[in-house]
Amino acid sequence: MFENASRTEISSLGEFRLIDHLTKNITLRNNTLKGVGDDAAVIEHEGGTCTVVSTDMLVEGVHFDLSYFPLKHLGYKAITVNLSDIYAMNAKPKQVTVSIALSSKFSLEAVEELYEGIYLACDRYHIDLVGGDTTTSKHGLTLSITAIGEAQKEDIVYRSGAKANEILVVSGDLGGAYAGYQLLEREKRVYLDNPNAQPDLSGFDYILERQLKPEARKDVVDILKNLGIKPTSMIDVSDGLASECFHLASQSALGITLYEEKIPIDPTTYNFARELDIDPTLCALSGGEDYELLFTIKQEDVSKIEFHPDFSMIGHMTDLASGHKMVSKSGNVHDLKAQGWTAF
Amino acid sequence: MFENASRTEISSLGEFRLIDHLTKNITLRNNTLKGVGDDAAVIEHEGGTCTVVSTDMLVEGVHFDLSYFPLKHLGYKAITVNLSDIYAMNAKPKQVTVSIALSSKFSLEAVEELYEGIYLACDRYHIDLVGGDTTTSKHGLTLSITAIGEAQKEDIVYRSGAKANEILVVSGDLGGAYAGYQLLEREKRVYLDNPNAQPDLSGFDYILERQLKPEARKDVVDILKNLGIKPTSMIDVSDGLASECFHLASQSALGITLYEEKIPIDPTTYNFARELDIDPTLCALSGGEDYELLFTIKQEDVSKIEFHPDFSMIGHMTDLASGHKMVSKSGNVHDLKAQGWTAF
Repeated sequence: MFENASRTEISSLGEFRLIDHLTKNITLRNNTLKGVGDDAAVIEHEGGTCTVVSTDMLVEGVHFDLSYFPLKHLGYKAITVNLSDIYAMNAKPKQVTVSIALSSKFSLEAVEELYEGIYLACDRYHIDLVGGDTTTSKHGLTLSITAIGEAQKEDIVYRSGAKANEILVVSGDLGGAYAGYQLLEREKRVYLDNPNAQPDLSGFDYILERQLKPEARKDVVDILKNLGIKPTSMIDVSDGLASECFHLASQSALGITLYEEKIPIDPTTYNFARELDIDPTLCALSGGEDYELLFTIKQEDVSKIEFHPDFSMIGHMTDLASGHKMVSKSGNVHDLKAQGWTAF
Repeated sequence: MFENASRTEISSLGEFRLIDHLTKNITLRNNTLKGVGDDAAVIEHEGGTCTVVSTDMLVEGVHFDLSYFPLKHLGYKAITVNLSDIYAMNAKPKQVTVSIALSSKFSLEAVEELYEGIYLACDRYHIDLVGGDTTTSKHGLTLSITAIGEAQKEDIVYRSGAKANEILVVSGDLGGAYAGYQLLEREKRVYLDNPNAQPDLSGFDYILERQLKPEARKDVVDILKNLGIKPTSMIDVSDGLASECFHLASQSALGITLYEEKIPIDPTTYNFARELDIDPTLCALSGGEDYELLFTIKQEDVSKIEFHPDFSMIGHMTDLASGHKMVSKSGNVHDLKAQGWTAF
C-alpha cells in the first residue's frame, strides 16, 4: 500500500497545504455555520445559541520534549492552548474532552501528574472535563484535546470579517514562548554534554512560563465587551504573528501592513534573543505559541483602546493589491514572510 | 520523571479502572448534563436542545493492523464507530472532527485513501466534517475522531435509566466482527509463512464486512421512534455484549439475566467460529466491535417489537442482588463474565 507507482511526500506540501488539499471539497449539510478554516467550527442551534468546537493533537517528540517539559505543565498547556482557540472566536469555552495514548514507559503516577495539570487548567478556566479516550500506544505519548464553547450567533468573530483601513491590535506581548523554547533547548544541550551541570534558568522566569505554562486570554473577551468593542476579525497567535496576519488578510481578502516598532516584546524576551543573536522581531513574527489574541477593530473604536495596557495597535488592513508588508524600525518597507511553526 | 520511588504499571488497572481513577473527582460547573461515563457527553443549551459529544482515539498496531486493513476502510470505520456512540444516546450525529498524526511512511496518496473512506462515511450518514488537526508522528498513524450530535433533552437515553423487569433488546446480530478479525489474522499468518499464498476469504464476505466496514445503526433510532418506543437505557456494543450488559446493569444499579439461546448470531459467524473451535456465544459476549445497539424497553412495549426482524429480546433486568447471569442453552445458570476488549 505504501508502494504506489505515484508517491507524493507529505513534507512536500506542509501542514496548511495538506489540510487545504484534504478539505477543499467539503460540503456542509447540517447546522454548521463554519467548518474547517477558522480557529474553531461553529454549530448553530435553534434560538441562535452556537456551539464552538476546536481540536488539537500533540505528539511527544514533535510538539513537546518530556526531557524538560514537566507532565503537569504539559497537561495544563494542552488545555489552555485549546481554550485559546475558543476565545479567538469571541466565545466562552465550557467543556473539554481529553484523549491520550501512552506507551508502557508511563506509570500511573506519571499519568496522574499529567491530569493534575489538566484539572488545574479546568479549575482556573471554569471548564468541565466531559469525556475522552484512554488507550495504549506503541511509542510515547499522544494527546488529543477537543474544546467546546458557547456563544450567541451575533457575538461570534471570524477570521474573515476585517475591512480595509481597520486597525490591527494584539494583546500582551510576543516572542516570549519561542525565547523560552530556545532557552530550554540550550540547557538541554548543556545537560547532555555534561549531566552534572546545573541548568542556568535564573532571571528567565517570564519566558519559561510563556513556553511551559501559557495562559489563554480569557480576560480579553470580557475586556473588549466592557469597552464596547466587537472585533471585526480575530485569531489566536499560535503559529507566529506573521502567519496569523496572513490568515486574517487572506480570509478577509485584504492586504496588511505591520509596524515593527509597534510589536510588543517583553524585555526578557528581547534580551535573551539578543544573547542568542536572534532578531527579537523574528521571535515575535515566526516563533509562535504566544496564545495572544490578534484582532482588527474599526477606526472609531481606536479611542476606546489606545491607552489600554493590555493591547498594542501594530498595523492596519489594506486593500488586497497592497500585499503583506512590514515597515521596519528604520522606516523601510519589507515584504512580510510567514514562517510559522510547521509540524511537517 | 519515570523513576519515581513508587511506580504503578497502568496495565495493572486496565482501561476502565484507569478512566475511573482519573475522572472520579470531576466536578461539573457548566451546562453539562452528563460528563464522563456514558456513550457520549451531553451539553444543554437554552431552549432544551442538547449537544452530544463522543470521542475515540485509534492507534496503529493497537486498534488496527494496516497489513490487512485498507486505509479507506479504516477511515470509514473510524467515523462510523464514533457515530454509533451518538446514536446510542438516541441522538442524531451532525458533525465530526478528524485529527491525524502520521509518520513519513505515509504518502499523500495514502492519506487521500484514508480521507476517501472518511468522506464516504460522512456522505452516507449525512455528516459535516468541520475540523481537526493534521500533524506528523514519529511512528505510525494515530487517529482521533470527535463526533457531535444533537437531540432534545427529553429524547436522550442514558445507560442508567433501566428498571428491574424491563426487557433487554439488541439490534442485528453479534460476534461477526470478532469472527472477521480472527479470519484476517489467520490469513495474515498464512501470508507471513508463505507470501505466495492467496488469501482464502471466499464465502466470508459478511464477517469481513462486519470487521472492516461496520455500519452504525442510524436506522434503529428512527425505527424505535416510529414504533412509539423510547428505550429506557441504551449503549452500543463496542466491547462485547457481556461488557455492555455490565455497564447497563451497574449504571442502572440493577442485575441482569441473559438467555444464551436468544443471542442473535449470523450463520457465517457461527460456522466460522466452529471451524476455529471457538464458542460462537463467546464471540458475541466478548468479541466486541459489532456496533449494534443494546437497550432496555418497558414490558408494555414488547408487543410493538417482538416480531420485528431487526431486534432480538435477549434477557431482562433484575434487582441488584440477583447479579449478572446467563442461562445457557442447556438451561444452566452461569455467572456472566465481562471479558471486553482491553486496550491495555
